[in-house]
Amino acid sequence: MNFRARLGAALDTKIVRNGIIAVIIVNAVLLGMETSDRIMGATGPLIPVLDSICLLIFVAELAAKIVAYGRRFFASGWNLFDFVIVGISLAPGAQTLSVLRALRILRLLRVISVAPRLRRVVEGFVSALPGMGSVFLLMALIFYIGSVMATKLFGQSFPQWFGTLGQSAYSLFQIMTLESWSMGIVRPVMETYPYAWLFFVPFILLTTFAVVNLLVGLIVNSMQDAHHAEDVERTDTYRDEVLNRLAAIEAKLDAHEDAKPDSVTAHRRV
Amino acid sequence: MNFRARLGAALDTKIVRNGIIAVIIVNAVLLGMETSDRIMGATGPLIPVLDSICLLIFVAELAAKIVAYGRRFFASGWNLFDFVIVGISLAPGAQTLSVLRALRILRLLRVISVAPRLRRVVEGFVSALPGMGSVFLLMALIFYIGSVMATKLFGQSFPQWFGTLGQSAYSLFQIMTLESWSMGIVRPVMETYPYAWLFFVPFILLTTFAVVNLLVGLIVNSMQDAHHAEDVERTDTYRDEVLNRLAAIEAKLDAHEDAKPDSVTAHRRV
Amino acid sequence: MNFRARLGAALDTKIVRNGIIAVIIVNAVLLGMETSDRIMGATGPLIPVLDSICLLIFVAELAAKIVAYGRRFFASGWNLFDFVIVGISLAPGAQTLSVLRALRILRLLRVISVAPRLRRVVEGFVSALPGMGSVFLLMALIFYIGSVMATKLFGQSFPQWFGTLGQSAYSLFQIMTLESWSMGIVRPVMETYPYAWLFFVPFILLTTFAVVNLLVGLIVNSMQDAHHAEDVERTDTYRDEVLNRLAAIEAKLDAHEDAKPDSVTAHRRV
Amino acid sequence: MNFRARLGAALDTKIVRNGIIAVIIVNAVLLGMETSDRIMGATGPLIPVLDSICLLIFVAELAAKIVAYGRRFFASGWNLFDFVIVGISLAPGAQTLSVLRALRILRLLRVISVAPRLRRVVEGFVSALPGMGSVFLLMALIFYIGSVMATKLFGQSFPQWFGTLGQSAYSLFQIMTLESWSMGIVRPVMETYPYAWLFFVPFILLTTFAVVNLLVGLIVNSMQDAHHAEDVERTDTYRDEVLNRLAAIEAKLDAHEDAKPDSVTAHRRV
Repeated sequence: MNFRARLGAALDTKIVRNGIIAVIIVNAVLLGMETSDRIMGATGPLIPVLDSICLLIFVAELAAKIVAYGRRFFASGWNLFDFVIVGISLAPGAQTLSVLRALRILRLLRVISVAPRLRRVVEGFVSALPGMGSVFLLMALIFYIGSVMATKLFGQSFPQWFGTLGQSAYSLFQIMTLESWSMGIVRPVMETYPYAWLFFVPFILLTTFAVVNLLVGLIVNSMQDAHHAEDVERTDTYRDEVLNRLAAIEAKLDAHEDAKPDSVTAHRRV
Repeated sequence: MNFRARLGAALDTKIVRNGIIAVIIVNAVLLGMETSDRIMGATGPLIPVLDSICLLIFVAELAAKIVAYGRRFFASGWNLFDFVIVGISLAPGAQTLSVLRALRILRLLRVISVAPRLRRVVEGFVSALPGMGSVFLLMALIFYIGSVMATKLFGQSFPQWFGTLGQSAYSLFQIMTLESWSMGIVRPVMETYPYAWLFFVPFILLTTFAVVNLLVGLIVNSMQDAHHAEDVERTDTYRDEVLNRLAAIEAKLDAHEDAKPDSVTAHRRV
Repeated sequence: MNFRARLGAALDTKIVRNGIIAVIIVNAVLLGMETSDRIMGATGPLIPVLDSICLLIFVAELAAKIVAYGRRFFASGWNLFDFVIVGISLAPGAQTLSVLRALRILRLLRVISVAPRLRRVVEGFVSALPGMGSVFLLMALIFYIGSVMATKLFGQSFPQWFGTLGQSAYSLFQIMTLESWSMGIVRPVMETYPYAWLFFVPFILLTTFAVVNLLVGLIVNSMQDAHHAEDVERTDTYRDEVLNRLAAIEAKLDAHEDAKPDSVTAHRRV
Repeated sequence: MNFRARLGAALDTKIVRNGIIAVIIVNAVLLGMETSDRIMGATGPLIPVLDSICLLIFVAELAAKIVAYGRRFFASGWNLFDFVIVGISLAPGAQTLSVLRALRILRLLRVISVAPRLRRVVEGFVSALPGMGSVFLLMALIFYIGSVMATKLFGQSFPQWFGTLGQSAYSLFQIMTLESWSMGIVRPVMETYPYAWLFFVPFILLTTFAVVNLLVGLIVNSMQDAHHAEDVERTDTYRDEVLNRLAAIEAKLDAHEDAKPDSVTAHRRV
């Protein structure tokens, strides 16, 4: 076993995996403490230093994996996921831009790629997405059409909600979630355009119906998956056995028939 | 093959279909850019001209289809759908009335009738509607009764919410979506009519329960459809085979029985 | 056939049923028009007179039914339903008390007892209720406990929301529907009692979870009903047939066995 | 039967159980009346005295159970539940601290451990939790990451919502329930940070999707449980019978084959 294979095997041991999980949890606590000015003031440079050590461990683990697996490393979606997450923390501006600094907390997502159970849940989520592609496309269409119409119809009188395509899309998303749709937006709009409900009420009914259909699709899919994994297999083996046995009985009866003429002939011959 | 048949075949080719989709997407972008005063100012008359070209292509395609299919064109719901959508853009006032101008964006819906996958999703939605007819009728009944009662009970004190039947229906729709129902409407009403909750709380429970039943009906229907399409067919062919084989075995046993007496007689005759 | 039997048969004909539906619809329109002061002013005493005629027809139909069916009339829940609904319109104060006058619109609910499809939907709703009895009891318990606690904890500082048991129950219902729960109620309460979220957040999680369980129960029940009505019956007849045929084959084989010794003996005897 | 066994049997009789339920209901009414200053003023010390008697009965029943069952008492989760609930009422500060006094109402929860039907519902709820463990963990992760990011990004400008980790978590919970998320929080935030929606909209989509997956998981689980308890068992007994009968038929055919050579030989011997 060469060095790379041994390194790959070492990275896959339980002790390394649990160690990484421990570092992630420690890092989570550190990043949480960083949000408190009081704790930061009391501990001085301790937390940033510990945080850097955690980051170093992540980088080292990733580097070891790349060495061990070579090009195959980038074939796995989860490895790419880890690579991007750790990469964000190393981005040049990460110490100055507050947004990039805030994104460092995404490192905790590494716990998903390390813990198999969480990994399976996320894979379950992601695998449900393609089946909903058409409905998503349809909703995007509804949103785009709705945004263009809302901007043209109400943009001039209510620029704070429907001034641009983007603002309209945001406002329509808010309306789809039913948050303050009437008291906050549609009633004020209706004071200027009394028939505005002819646009908004159908929009709500349409998007709600589409969301409900997404939900129904998800339920039916999950149900069938669960159904298949367990029941169908047992049913199939049962059915195969029944058919085999029936075939065997028929074969025996046929053999029996073939055998009889002899015996009958035998009698005749007597 | 005469001219009409050849035209029909040409319209059904992949290249024409994809071309129409491309025109729809270009048109979508154009109509989106039209909402921005800055872009409109910078490009001058370019966008309206391109938009008119897109419309021209749609009209040409529709006209070609009508020529190709003749009266059969109007037998398909999707063709009527396209016809109405394109027709709206050609309505005489479309250049002056802002509402009609805003409706032109509905042209993008043509993408549904062109793309088979989106078409199937919409057909799925629509096919689910008739099964929910009774519940919709019941909800319309609840809304009408609720609106009349709310108008009579609270109309005089709260004309902005319950002044007319229409306003009451809108307010009750808002209450059904649970948007600001208490803080925005019922609490103020209860300051004048302390027992108003006796009307609104049952209304919420009733309509929510009806909506939940719609959802449950949708789920059960989809489940059965999915169940049928796949499982039931396999089960049926399996069952038929088992019964056929059992019948064959019985028939063989019967033939066997019939054959025996002869042999027995043969012996006797000996 | 005596008079009562003939009357009962006449009331059950399609023409009488459709006539009643027509009267209900006319009555619905009349009661809707009554909400408009403008229409009432223009038509004078016409609408109240027509409304009284509708009521008269309902009373006559009910009286005829009571005569026709005698005591059996009150055995049907739907008859009692009609009886109460029409009775409300005849209540002495119905012309003076605005609440009783508003309740007259409930007469439209008669359309449910007349139209078989609506009747079935409502019966479906009602039949789902007993299965949810335990969860309802549990939610009542949560609400009672929550109301007592909220009244004791927050009643003095926030009498408008939690002053009495009834007010607390109403506020908690509002919180359960998630309407303005945080911005409207919990954030203001938390300014006085910073740990108030320890009461409200678990309350929301608990009631939401209970509601979700109601929904899940409904779905599972409906699914099983749908499943049973169709699939299980076919499976049962299939299974019975397979077992019968297998039993027949075994019986034939046994008969065969019994028959053989004879033939063997016959040979032996030869 | 010694004293402890007889005591245990006596505690398990229907009369004792119903007696306890009656005491719980009386206690519920008393604690409800305690919230009304008017009733408390009119009845003087009556209600607190009756309440103490109820508490005494609960303590006596628990003590009797501990005597009867000994150490086994603490093996049952429901007994521990009763023990903690009654214990809270006996806590030293219970007469002075208003929070502890409010917690006394939790005693009513004892009705769950006494009534078997409620007990089963709660056990159903609790048994559904472990299956959702991974999704809960994932949501906790999303909330923690979201809280840290929100605190770092928006904490300084909006300390009332995102000042500390705890405040951020509460605000994000509110946003997840969709209560005033846009009008109340995100729109004001977007006036300072125009790109704040890039954080909040994905957060809403992610948590909603996770909640929907919890719901789907619950439905699929319940469905399978219901499916199993009834259908699968019947199917299994049916399948066993079919296979047994087929095996029997094959055995008979084999015996038949073995028997034939004799008969054939017999003929030959003739």
